[in-house]
Parts: sequence; structure tokens; C-alpha cells
Amino acid sequence: MSMNETIKLQLNHRSIRSFTDQQIPQEQVDLLISAAQHASTSNFFQQYSIIGVTDPEKKQALAKIGNQHYIAEADRLFVFVVDMNRNAKIAEAKEQPTDILGSTDFFFRAFSDTVIAAQNLVIAAESLGLGAVYLGSILNDPQAVIDLLKLPKYTFPAFGIAIGYPNQSPQLKPRLPKEAVYHENEYQPIEQPSEKLKAYDHDVNQYYDLRDANRRVDTFTNQIAKAVSAEQSENKRKMLDTLKAQGLIQY
Amino acid sequence: MSMNETIKLQLNHRSIRSFTDQQIPQEQVDLLISAAQHASTSNFFQQYSIIGVTDPEKKQALAKIGNQHYIAEADRLFVFVVDMNRNAKIAEAKEQPTDILGSTDFFFRAFSDTVIAAQNLVIAAESLGLGAVYLGSILNDPQAVIDLLKLPKYTFPAFGIAIGYPNQSPQLKPRLPKEAVYHENEYQPIEQPSEKLKAYDHDVNQYYDLRDANRRVDTFTNQIAKAVSAEQSENKRKMLDTLKAQGLIQY
Repeated sequence: MSMNETIKLQLNHRSIRSFTDQQIPQEQVDLLISAAQHASTSNFFQQYSIIGVTDPEKKQALAKIGNQHYIAEADRLFVFVVDMNRNAKIAEAKEQPTDILGSTDFFFRAFSDTVIAAQNLVIAAESLGLGAVYLGSILNDPQAVIDLLKLPKYTFPAFGIAIGYPNQSPQLKPRLPKEAVYHENEYQPIEQPSEKLKAYDHDVNQYYDLRDANRRVDTFTNQIAKAVSAEQSENKRKMLDTLKAQGLIQY
Repeated sequence: MSMNETIKLQLNHRSIRSFTDQQIPQEQVDLLISAAQHASTSNFFQQYSIIGVTDPEKKQALAKIGNQHYIAEADRLFVFVVDMNRNAKIAEAKEQPTDILGSTDFFFRAFSDTVIAAQNLVIAAESLGLGAVYLGSILNDPQAVIDLLKLPKYTFPAFGIAIGYPNQSPQLKPRLPKEAVYHENEYQPIEQPSEKLKAYDHDVNQYYDLRDANRRVDTFTNQIAKAVSAEQSENKRKMLDTLKAQGLIQY
């Protein structure tokens, strides 16, 4: 039998957005960071940093930026940072140029390093019975996060992760059918998506319906259609400018 | 005690670049893809696709692009694709505009989805005793990968992952000291890196030294200094143009 504890854990993943007051032992937090550090990184450059936010005011500030109260309520809050500043400092100390760190190529490698490390941290946390949630919402205002955490040139916040003991047990969300996500040998664009995703739309609709009467009860395809036609905030419209000001994605 | 099988697995991660001829049962491959699909995604939009490359000619073509023979030698080869084409098709079918999918904000969410799913696949593979390696090298020529896999508008290849039964057991690579990667409440730029990373430089030097006499024997800080001062290929210099031609990172 192929199934094992690790895969069982992965197949049962739920994002947790409500936490008890219980504190995570420091030894476990150290283990989470170590698990993150042991993930693959591009060329072994390790181009990410993790900022543990413990200052209650900073937690509140991030909760306000993300517009999600639970950001400040989790026992542990981490911001994962795409980080080529460390390598820039190393290169400068050896009197080397650092312009290449401003390329899209290097940015992608560093971004991948950051997310790979983050997912290792999430898996490790869940394996310890902790709950975790990614906080993409901190990018509602990237510049505010940069200022708050004093992020220097060649760094950019990718997202936050909140960790704590779960105070809720959400249903498992139904995933897209494998055929919609998995392709063989070449990409197959989805045609007539409303037909192809009819059963999935139904499942998603049921899922929201059962979970919480206050949440939108909408099919997957309707959610997507609404999201792409939604107004985009000024901060999000200028995200590329913010990146460029950090020295990133110059070309 | 906090340690468990999952975290043990994570702390023992090695990239595997040599594989036996043994085939992975299809049931296990399906489980890997399912593990990838069950990871977190931004707003549950699931903006990635996985392309399983089984055609021997396409495997060879990717090995040539990546300039790594082992790409074609692994039993399974996956290309992870940042994919907003599916959502564009959904929106178009509902007569909605799709311009927002060209924003950096949406690209970042989709990129994160892609990498999170990929790392779940790697962890699942390792938990089954398989070996895995990320193939950032396919981005040596993004346009060639786009052409080979027929990647349409709003998609971009993030990297490949090769999976198979390990035919080598590399040493564990020493990671940067925690202090270099982990910050509390605000970012602390590394000062005098050669001093701070002296012990680490020594460890890295020993690691390469013991592993393989044909590989560079160099400290971490020297490797970084060389990498940032290296010539960048034309394809890498124009990666942003390639992204823009795919309809991505327009603003």
C-alpha cells in the first residue's frame, strides 16, 4: 500500500484561521524553521529569509494590512521574504557587481526558494498537529510591509504564514478534477469550462453551502469570473513599481 | 519528543540526480499528483498546471535545454506551469475581461500556487522512497519550453521536477546557520559576511571536498561571488520579455 503518514497529512490539508491560546514550544518552532531550511533551493543559493513577527504591534499592523483579524491571533507569525540582499552583501564584500540580482531570472529562483521553504514549514507544522494558513493578504500593501519589517534592496515579502493550535476543523475543500490540472506532453487548454467543470462547480457549491451560511455560496467558475472582473486596488496595480524600487525585476 | 516521520524526511532531504531503471507504479504517480493538488492555493484559485512528460523525444529536448542528461533518465518528468489560462477560459466563457490576469499581483499568486503544489509533490515522492530533483535549468530557454509544451497565453513554466528510484546517496548539504536566514521582527542585513559565515564556508568546503573530486571545491561565499559576477545568457537576460509575450507581468 502506497499511503503513508506524510501523504495522509497532505491529502487532509485544511487552512486553519482560528487558533487557541496555547503556545507552541520554542523547540517545535526551531524544528519548523529547520525543516524550512532543509528544502531544495536553486543552485543551493538559499535566497530567502524568514521573519518571525512576535511584536504585538507589528502583528496588529500586519493584520490591518491583510484585513484579517486572525493574522494577529495566531501564536506564531512568519513573513517569508524573497531575499537576495544577503548574497548582494556577500558579493559586495568580495568587490563583485550585483546587477544580476536585479534580473527576472534571479528573482524567479529566489521566489521559488522562498515558497519551497515555506511549504516545508507548513507541512512540518501540520505534522505536529498545528494549524497553518498562508497570508497572501499582506500583499494588499507591499510597501507597508517593506517599511514595517525594514526590508532592504533585493528583498520582497512573498506572503505570511500564521501557525497555531487549531480552534476549528473546516471541511476538506474539493479540488479541481485531475484532468483540469494534469496534462500529458503538452498543454491542453480547457474548452467549454462550464461543461467540463459542471460536477466540480456543484461540489464547490455544496462545500460552501454546508460550511458557513455567511460565506458566499457560489460555484468555482462563478468565483473565478467575479475575481477577474473585480476592481484592483491601487497598491496591487503598482506592485511591479514596488518591486522595481526594491531593485528587483529590473529586466 | 517533537520529531516525527514527516519532519525526519524533511531534515534528510537530498536532491537525487541519478536513477535506477525501475518504474514507479501508476497508482503512486496518481498519489503524487493528488498530494500536489491538495496543497494550499491563493484564494483557492488553483492557478497552476502539471505537465507529465512521457514522450522520449520531449524528455530529450528538455534534457538538452537544461543541459543535464539526468532530466531524460528519470522515470517521471513533470513540468510545473504557472497557469492562469484555465481561469482566462472560464472568464471568457462568462464574457468577463481577463486583463487582471496580466498583473504582477495575479502572477505572484499563481507562481506561489505552482511552487507550493510542486513541493507537496516532492515531499510525497520522498515519503515513498523516491528521489526527486528540481530542474530550474529548463529556464535556460523559456521560449523553447513554451514551444515544446505548447504553453498558451497566461502560462509560464516555473521549473521541472524529475522523479525516480535513487541510484545514489549524496551527503546531506550543510545549510546556512539559522541566524543568517531567520530574523525577528525586522530584517537584519548581514554585515561582514565573510566573518559571519566563516564556519559555514568551512563546512561547505568540506562537503564538496568529500563528495566528488570533480566538483568545485569552494566556499559558499566564493560560490555566490562567482555566480553574481558570471555572464548571463541572452535567453536569461530576456526572460521578462518572454513573460510579457505570454501576457504576464504586463504591469
